[in-house]
Amino acid sequence: MQIYGDLISGNCLKVKYTADWLGLDYDWVDVDIMQGQSRTDDFLTHNPAGQVPTVVFADGRALAQSNAIIRYLARDSALLPADAFERAKVDEWLFWEQYSHEPYVAVCRFQMVYEKRAASERDAWRVERGEAALDLLERTLSEPRWLVADALSVADISLYGYTALAHEGGFDLTGRPGIAAWLDRTRGALGLG
Amino acid sequence: MQIYGDLISGNCLKVKYTADWLGLDYDWVDVDIMQGQSRTDDFLTHNPAGQVPTVVFADGRALAQSNAIIRYLARDSALLPADAFERAKVDEWLFWEQYSHEPYVAVCRFQMVYEKRAASERDAWRVERGEAALDLLERTLSEPRWLVADALSVADISLYGYTALAHEGGFDLTGRPGIAAWLDRTRGALGLG
Repeated sequence: MQIYGDLISGNCLKVKYTADWLGLDYDWVDVDIMQGQSRTDDFLTHNPAGQVPTVVFADGRALAQSNAIIRYLARDSALLPADAFERAKVDEWLFWEQYSHEPYVAVCRFQMVYEKRAASERDAWRVERGEAALDLLERTLSEPRWLVADALSVADISLYGYTALAHEGGFDLTGRPGIAAWLDRTRGALGLG
Repeated sequence: MQIYGDLISGNCLKVKYTADWLGLDYDWVDVDIMQGQSRTDDFLTHNPAGQVPTVVFADGRALAQSNAIIRYLARDSALLPADAFERAKVDEWLFWEQYSHEPYVAVCRFQMVYEKRAASERDAWRVERGEAALDLLERTLSEPRWLVADALSVADISLYGYTALAHEGGFDLTGRPGIAAWLDRTRGALGLG
């Protein structure tokens, strides 16, 4: 398996964390987003949407979208609950992450880290929605738990991706002890030291 | 099963189309988004994120996120392929829809239909990305097909939701015959007349 990704991207890190936890063999193929390497003709044959992460399996078949990838890699493992409704709750978090968390928390980070904006120059509406996403996560994690079914799942790995990097986007987690404890718990479970 | 939704929302319509295709019994509970009915204390007990659609099952358990819901409802049906990799390709489309299609195609429609903006007053960056999403869809559908595995799946239902309403957001499908034919095909398969 080849994982095309960029280690500066939380979306790509999700795939690395999942593959490492599962002990899968893979080659990491660096794709420098900022240099347009996800838009080359060669890359677009793997993923016409021009996005990383994209995984290419030994038989040549490709799969894109970080959350689709980690769900697929984890399909027969403890990272995905056996119960159908619990799997659906994992999916609920995965879709929430891409719709209500990533476009705000990750994009604010992008604006600060790559576009070199000051915190005050982030899009105000993205800041507001990012804060709201983190508030919802904090309420959910106000008691020690995993996001679904009392066990680490790909829902935690997905949300960990950009929540662990939220401070780089100007978001303050110090007033959110539930998130901070869950980040520590997830980091430990993933062996990230 | 109760489906909390608003029939003006493509995300909610996806759930209705799927439930109807599957012949499921349900009560439709109208939630008027524009009147703030998804933000009442009562509604937030079902979905703390305050979003429709949200489904509440007979045992009281709730599930949110349109694509998580339709994937769950369809889990043992022909709307979800049996093959694990094909299911992952369905997921790829579902995540792409929420990240690269809905925030542009649906939000432009929202700006025109509910905020009464002229087409020229839509957010330019959303228009650009919406056009790019429709272009990718047109390339995919340039030969007659379903999105995954030569059969109608929840991937088609998900993308149908807002693509069928794209014209209300100022997007022109007349130059996109592949999409137009697939919309017809999907409409027919869903019995939408």
